[in-house]
Amino acid sequence: MPGLIAENVEKLAPYTPGEQPRRAGVVKLNTNENPYPPSPECAKALRSFDPSRLRLYPDPVFLALRKKIAQIHRTVPARIFVGNGSDEILALAAKAFSWEGRKIGSLDPSYSLYKTMAAIRGVEWTGDSRDRDLSLFLWTNPNAPTGRFAEPEEIAAFAKKFKGVVIVDEAYADFARGDAMKLATAPGNRNVIAMRTFSKSYSLAGLRVGYCVGPEKLVAALYKIKDSYNVDAIAQAVALAALSDRRWMKANAAKIRRTRRLFSIELERRGWDVVPSEANFVFAKPPAAMSARDLYAALRDRDVFVRYFPGPATGDRLRITIGLDVEMEKLLAEMDSIFRKKNERRKR
Amino acid sequence: MPGLIAENVEKLAPYTPGEQPRRAGVVKLNTNENPYPPSPECAKALRSFDPSRLRLYPDPVFLALRKKIAQIHRTVPARIFVGNGSDEILALAAKAFSWEGRKIGSLDPSYSLYKTMAAIRGVEWTGDSRDRDLSLFLWTNPNAPTGRFAEPEEIAAFAKKFKGVVIVDEAYADFARGDAMKLATAPGNRNVIAMRTFSKSYSLAGLRVGYCVGPEKLVAALYKIKDSYNVDAIAQAVALAALSDRRWMKANAAKIRRTRRLFSIELERRGWDVVPSEANFVFAKPPAAMSARDLYAALRDRDVFVRYFPGPATGDRLRITIGLDVEMEKLLAEMDSIFRKKNERRKR
Repeated sequence: MPGLIAENVEKLAPYTPGEQPRRAGVVKLNTNENPYPPSPECAKALRSFDPSRLRLYPDPVFLALRKKIAQIHRTVPARIFVGNGSDEILALAAKAFSWEGRKIGSLDPSYSLYKTMAAIRGVEWTGDSRDRDLSLFLWTNPNAPTGRFAEPEEIAAFAKKFKGVVIVDEAYADFARGDAMKLATAPGNRNVIAMRTFSKSYSLAGLRVGYCVGPEKLVAALYKIKDSYNVDAIAQAVALAALSDRRWMKANAAKIRRTRRLFSIELERRGWDVVPSEANFVFAKPPAAMSARDLYAALRDRDVFVRYFPGPATGDRLRITIGLDVEMEKLLAEMDSIFRKKNERRKR
Repeated sequence: MPGLIAENVEKLAPYTPGEQPRRAGVVKLNTNENPYPPSPECAKALRSFDPSRLRLYPDPVFLALRKKIAQIHRTVPARIFVGNGSDEILALAAKAFSWEGRKIGSLDPSYSLYKTMAAIRGVEWTGDSRDRDLSLFLWTNPNAPTGRFAEPEEIAAFAKKFKGVVIVDEAYADFARGDAMKLATAPGNRNVIAMRTFSKSYSLAGLRVGYCVGPEKLVAALYKIKDSYNVDAIAQAVALAALSDRRWMKANAAKIRRTRRLFSIELERRGWDVVPSEANFVFAKPPAAMSARDLYAALRDRDVFVRYFPGPATGDRLRITIGLDVEMEKLLAEMDSIFRKKNERRKR
């Protein structure tokens, strides 16, 4: 059907999100979801939401939510934008801060969506942060799928020299030892946007709310091009409730960090190479007896889902979300069983 | 701050959605919201939604919802796409079905967002449906702000000759005497997409769910470029509940049509010129004693909100949403009082 679809879209291989198996009994450690439920305040907000309010459009500029976010980060609502998940913010940023002839860059490897995003925008992607044609650089911190953390000073030094816009994607910041939010809220900040999501630390992946903080002029550009009512009324109410109980979020993040530490030790004991992680997942290389790809498939056969990213930079490792302790134990038990069987077959 | 923001975005005047006053006592007839609440099934779905599900990502391809929509329109799920409001579908369609050098067209006047959408996409907008550079034409039916209905045969004839994609924006179809959905579901359909929303007839503007039906290849292009999880889990559940009780929606649409008829008669009795409407609003020209603009402002001072669109094609009329009978009576009473005062002042 030539001529109906834009060429860059026609050529596009769609981004593949992680599998979302719905069967009971599955151990789902493949999409960095939080194993703990959201705050009881979210449940309360949901229960007390008056359904008849739904006949009206939501607040197009989510002012209550922005005020609360501004208070948390000690800044002003005019520097805050909220999206239908940070994915929407990324897509809007690609429209606002990149254009033909310029490039979108990111760490490499990083969140695989960025490349798709550039292709959808019709611009080139590069993993070279010194590329002179860059107009937008996405610095995921802690990075995915590695879990590595860069010190805010390093990001600040990069942003200072960089001509374009730097988005620090801090989806996993609540699991890390620091963050770059102060760069975003600094009075003299020219080009740094820090982005957060409710999907991970707040246990609200199903709700689709993310936000970013940056210079007023850049944030204003996002408002210009967003859909009129991009965040629904229930999502605004539940996200606000989550922010009213940050202790809940922090307690869960602390539990996840503890499990991450213990699980990393277990992997290392078994001969894995584990990247030091500051996120809610670990990126680790199995011992030589089995490839990451084969192990991924064998685990999948046993209803244990982890994430495998093919390719030279990522294909020798698995990205494993930190779940409940019992889930990590189940994963370790299944892995031990898989390696044991493999070993037995080899001996025969 | 030259160089940070894309030129077409920098130049953009943002689309202005209708005001969303939140004060009690306001009569809000300015954004075509439904005066009746959503089906009790929606309230039930909301109440029974397990908040702990929110820790997981939603179904990225909303299969349950698509199956139900497919059943209603007697088609297959592969021909259905769901968006975060139809606004998102429009933005994705602009990406997928227009590109540099081609134009986006619509009826003129029509939904004012279309022009903004073209500007965001960086392509030209035209109101001339015979323009040879068109790759995407948006046919709102019934149209807004006029309320006029075009027969599906007229749209079919246009689409047959048209080289690009035709999106029939049927946001108001449930208030009309017909619709063009059969063009979209027809086996031989090459280029027609019909779009619906839950915002108007289903009383779910606050939820942000819209959908479209079209040829599988065109629908597949939208899936390629959408955000991974563009419709949240609660929205999917509540929209599905709304579709399980279409009698509720139809009963409300019937009430609105009845009020529309009676209100139009009242306006005409007072010397207004009323465009015959097939939507949940009327587009009407006040008698010569007062301009639409002045009347809009005078009503606003009395906490009655209607919509005024400046400009040569629309500036002599008001678009008035059909609300409850008591709201229309209040509006008429305030208008009568405004005209009476104006008249008294003139006499003095």
